[in-house]
Amino acid sequence: MKDISGGVCAPRGFKAGGVRCGIKESSQKRDLALIVSDRPCAAAGVFTTNRVQAASVVVSREHIAAGTLRAVIANSGNANACTGEEGLRAARRMAALAAEQLSAPGSAVPAGQVAVASTGVIGVPLPIGAIERGMGGLFAALKDSAEGHDAALEAIMTTDTRKKGGAVEAGIGGVPVRIGAMAKGSGMIHPNMATMLGFITTDADIEQGMLDAALRRAVRRSFNRLTIDGDSSTNDTVLVLANGEARNPRIEAGGEAYEAFASALESLCVRLARAMARDGEGASRLMTVTVRGAAGEDEAEALAKSVASSSLVKAACYGADANWGRVLCALGYAGVPFDPGAVSVRFASSAGTVLVCEKGGPAPFSEEDAARVLSQEEVEILADIEGGGPGAASVWGCDLTCDYVRINGDYRS
Amino acid sequence: MKDISGGVCAPRGFKAGGVRCGIKESSQKRDLALIVSDRPCAAAGVFTTNRVQAASVVVSREHIAAGTLRAVIANSGNANACTGEEGLRAARRMAALAAEQLSAPGSAVPAGQVAVASTGVIGVPLPIGAIERGMGGLFAALKDSAEGHDAALEAIMTTDTRKKGGAVEAGIGGVPVRIGAMAKGSGMIHPNMATMLGFITTDADIEQGMLDAALRRAVRRSFNRLTIDGDSSTNDTVLVLANGEARNPRIEAGGEAYEAFASALESLCVRLARAMARDGEGASRLMTVTVRGAAGEDEAEALAKSVASSSLVKAACYGADANWGRVLCALGYAGVPFDPGAVSVRFASSAGTVLVCEKGGPAPFSEEDAARVLSQEEVEILADIEGGGPGAASVWGCDLTCDYVRINGDYRS
Repeated sequence: MKDISGGVCAPRGFKAGGVRCGIKESSQKRDLALIVSDRPCAAAGVFTTNRVQAASVVVSREHIAAGTLRAVIANSGNANACTGEEGLRAARRMAALAAEQLSAPGSAVPAGQVAVASTGVIGVPLPIGAIERGMGGLFAALKDSAEGHDAALEAIMTTDTRKKGGAVEAGIGGVPVRIGAMAKGSGMIHPNMATMLGFITTDADIEQGMLDAALRRAVRRSFNRLTIDGDSSTNDTVLVLANGEARNPRIEAGGEAYEAFASALESLCVRLARAMARDGEGASRLMTVTVRGAAGEDEAEALAKSVASSSLVKAACYGADANWGRVLCALGYAGVPFDPGAVSVRFASSAGTVLVCEKGGPAPFSEEDAARVLSQEEVEILADIEGGGPGAASVWGCDLTCDYVRINGDYRS
Repeated sequence: MKDISGGVCAPRGFKAGGVRCGIKESSQKRDLALIVSDRPCAAAGVFTTNRVQAASVVVSREHIAAGTLRAVIANSGNANACTGEEGLRAARRMAALAAEQLSAPGSAVPAGQVAVASTGVIGVPLPIGAIERGMGGLFAALKDSAEGHDAALEAIMTTDTRKKGGAVEAGIGGVPVRIGAMAKGSGMIHPNMATMLGFITTDADIEQGMLDAALRRAVRRSFNRLTIDGDSSTNDTVLVLANGEARNPRIEAGGEAYEAFASALESLCVRLARAMARDGEGASRLMTVTVRGAAGEDEAEALAKSVASSSLVKAACYGADANWGRVLCALGYAGVPFDPGAVSVRFASSAGTVLVCEKGGPAPFSEEDAARVLSQEEVEILADIEGGGPGAASVWGCDLTCDYVRINGDYRS
């Protein structure tokens, strides 16, 4: 597997683009994005578990049920959530408008082959007129290059400060298969996702059920192990479209080819999840929490999430303060049985590793060393349960800073 | 029921005091507190549910098992948590030292009649020598007046900025019965408590089992409906001591007298819980979240806690931003079934009430009015589920400010 350029346009047969249609009234930023495949794709999706679901999520769930997509249309600046029947009509219209543009004489594309996604403020009617007026320009802006990927990615960003995308190529059955992805999200982010959107394209030829399985596994080990602020959004959506243009031997069952595809997909999703954590609202550091020695992987994940979600751990991380007691405290309320007396805690980064807690009690360490380790841009908190089980998992988060409060104290204005 | 002065010293037969023994090395603040009854008390306690439990919690649980206490000794500046066997020995020694001082020739007080509590930094050995040296002065400082209450209360405060205490008098069986209380806590606070300590005295004559039942009910509806930052501490302790000196007809079963006592206790605990929320680390506002129309009280509480715990709701509250979509979002991930389309949301304060969401969608409102309502020192978020069940509950929290981050970015130094 190797990294390649081009993002979602790296796989053959995909185009992308983004324009400003005027949803973000107060800015000149792009706000409408499109990703299109030349031909119908096997498609799979994972959506928010929030009981309050955006209209775009409701509509995309319906459309993806048949397993086939041609395009994804997405907007930023408005979540189209808590917008009632009018919101549902607007989301359906958004898909229909894109489908009309995709249709050629004699080959109509059904609206059901277009997924929709929205991100932005909740409870404000989606300005569907602006989207309608922008549609021609959006299709005219489509490109099959990194430029198209970049423009589409810009158009789905909200409080994001960095572009989060990538592409990889893996040999599958002797054929190079490409996977490209983009993601946005930096607030309202929590396990089981949040206002995060992730769009993944691939030219792999893969049966829809296997694609769905690979996506679920990848999301479970990437986006669902990400927490910024504990708020699971109404709009989370991760979609993958596979158009088969790589002409690899079709993946129809588990085995070597499936594993190669699934692990390439997972690795790309993990990269995006880490990038989202690093770009968490107001974040100054990426914080990886790794737990080893739990009863199983699920238990390790729950313990690591509890630490990564703790406001006190996050604030200490911001202050580069080796306050390991807060780590033990957060492990303790995770709702998972373990022996507190068997826990050791290490802080690690490019500046070294410091053991701060051994057998649940203080280990002698240099505060100076610990502060240096914790002052790096990427830090890791390692909790080992000695003599525990085989369960291990890493969760990604970020520190809690004043900028988070500033950003969210007045998001709407 | 009426408010009276004197705090934990208001009930007859109680003394309290606080001194500086030197645990808080870098400050001149009091750090050692004592509450003593003239005679043995029926006693009950509620403790943290964290799997990592401070040594003081372990020892107090043991001591309260017999249902009888004479005194509570507490320190701030050190949590005596994650301190291993040495910590347990120190906690036992702390109780034994107080018991020695209480003993008179011919009437030894067992160490098991003294509860201990600690609050402060985790993972640092408790300086038991300082406590030992301070013991004489501590007992010399005992007073049966508001002054004693105040000194003891000061000695358990950490990042608290306000004193949280009170006392009430209720007629029980025609006899005036008094209940006094103090509490500390402003960070690491979450439902099921946190670094919160609550000490309650009463001169009621009440059987231990009934006292225990009254305390659990009061805690469930007060301190357990409080969230500052989602971190449940290793040290939470609420204790009640009843010495019977009011000479009311002994409360030995449910009925009018029990209800009068239990509701006076609950009302005092609610007052302290609200005071703790108002004094949350860095808080500029008290935020009450009330949910009505849930299936039951537990469901209402879970929904309200989800909103009160949301970092995004808390940050919007700080910014006096009427971002009601975040309220719906937080209701949506509470894990409780409800119909999002039936929810209405109001913001209320001394400046008025504004309806911002109706039937799950936007209600027309004046941003100016909403900002004025949300700018007050105490604000309420009311979520009504129309046509829902009889469940209602209020949860207390506070806004999220930069000061929270500052306070916790470098707590230890």
